Amino acid sequence: MNSTSTTHWRFHRSVLENLVILAPGLLGGSVARAAHARGLARRITVWARRPEARLKLREQPWVQHVADTPEDAVREASLVVLAAPVDKIIELARLIAPHLPAGALVTDVGSVKGELCRACHTAIAGQAHFIGSHPMAGSEKTGWENATDTLFEKRVCFVTPLEGASESATATIARFWHDLGAEVTTVTPDQHDEITAHISHLPQAVATSLATFLAAKNPGWRNLSGNGLRDTTRIAASDATMWIEIFQQNRDEVLRALTKLEDELHGFKTALSNRDWPEVRARLERGKAWRDGFRP
Amino acid sequence: MNSTSTTHWRFHRSVLENLVILAPGLLGGSVARAAHARGLARRITVWARRPEARLKLREQPWVQHVADTPEDAVREASLVVLAAPVDKIIELARLIAPHLPAGALVTDVGSVKGELCRACHTAIAGQAHFIGSHPMAGSEKTGWENATDTLFEKRVCFVTPLEGASESATATIARFWHDLGAEVTTVTPDQHDEITAHISHLPQAVATSLATFLAAKNPGWRNLSGNGLRDTTRIAASDATMWIEIFQQNRDEVLRALTKLEDELHGFKTALSNRDWPEVRARLERGKAWRDGFRP
Repeated sequence: MNSTSTTHWRFHRSVLENLVILAPGLLGGSVARAAHARGLARRITVWARRPEARLKLREQPWVQHVADTPEDAVREASLVVLAAPVDKIIELARLIAPHLPAGALVTDVGSVKGELCRACHTAIAGQAHFIGSHPMAGSEKTGWENATDTLFEKRVCFVTPLEGASESATATIARFWHDLGAEVTTVTPDQHDEITAHISHLPQAVATSLATFLAAKNPGWRNLSGNGLRDTTRIAASDATMWIEIFQQNRDEVLRALTKLEDELHGFKTALSNRDWPEVRARLERGKAWRDGFRP
Repeated sequence: MNSTSTTHWRFHRSVLENLVILAPGLLGGSVARAAHARGLARRITVWARRPEARLKLREQPWVQHVADTPEDAVREASLVVLAAPVDKIIELARLIAPHLPAGALVTDVGSVKGELCRACHTAIAGQAHFIGSHPMAGSEKTGWENATDTLFEKRVCFVTPLEGASESATATIARFWHDLGAEVTTVTPDQHDEITAHISHLPQAVATSLATFLAAKNPGWRNLSGNGLRDTTRIAASDATMWIEIFQQNRDEVLRALTKLEDELHGFKTALSNRDWPEVRARLERGKAWRDGFRP
């Protein structure tokens, strides 16, 4: 798509004319609240699926307009954030595509990006720009009622343009998250899915498996543990419905990561079994060096 | 050993005449500080291996006497706490045994209990009572300089009498930890080692293996993670020297637990591989139910 002077103007200002959030939950609501608090949009428009949610949203000081349909919501959009669950985002992109103003920007907050970005790009191309996003800012709380204007501060946000995506559209999305307080990392959608399979989805599978094993072994033992087990299994308490979607969408990358982790665990077990204490120590020390290198 | 009226008097008072801590580190130092703060001993005696540590300990307000040898330290002991690293405790028990007053109580703070309790009991029996302890109150900090008088508050402390151990000695040790603020659980040394293999040593092996895998895969990715990976791998940063001793001493139980965890992880992977989403969901939900059941 060609940039016109209008789209240029729209893309390069840090204040958006009309920020549209579709289906706000914790993340979408926090985008709206943070954008409001930081003065990043002249107008914030939202649409929620349930009528009762729309009624409540009308009372929020950080919302200027509540639309009754996604199509209505996006008609004058500068930037649309698709904040629905991962399996509903593509559908929503297809629904709004014909109603987007030329040159509008569309992003999302989904946890898996490869298939989603390709499908959304296809749905929207020619009309507007789709550039995926994934702010790494979950919480055990859900729903826009729990949204805060500080949720993204110092949190990583992936911005995931497909190859050949508009650089100015990518830069605007990156700047948007930066302005919300996030630390932006730009990678391709497939790189994103490989990285998060390892640093997010694999730890979830491990924490869940540790939890299900100990639950079967003796659930009462959890109350005898120190903080180690508490921390190691904290994310096992995450929402199952959210995670089933992530595992469905990133199955292949997670399987690859799980297989390699099985090898690593087996290596630890073999060293222990062989009483190869130098090898056990080397593993403990490598793990410590890596963990000590986390930013504070 | 027969109780005399003297030992009875010594055992059943909640204020100890002479509490002796040998080789205080974080745990031993915190026992001394907490006992001092709570008025649990009329006199606190310590011995440290290094002369410079003994000099510094003389300046601490929570120490009444610093002995130059373990043998001297225990001559008038009511309760001796062996706070040395796990692989030095048995040696220390053998060293002090001939110098203990009749009916004295001896305990320790080691993380593995089976072999240790049997060896310490053998070393000390006939002279005094050995009843093992394991307060689940570690920290990434080490050394008595980091000790606090609140370290044991609301933390689990295992008390691990061998079968046939004196009930009054066991009750006194249990009361001592209770008075330091801990929540006491009494189990046999072998039960202790099975439980901690699962709730403490297994999570360490898992966190270490996740860490070493991700370190080899791409160490830079750690800076892109959210709090999930941060928590799941926190204990990978633990002290390697402490852990090598624990794995050496509890090798068989840890191997058993690791093998079962491998089965559990493999079950998760199989469900994912087969796109058996009801099974993946069931695992996520079982893990969540278990984790939600932790006491606050």
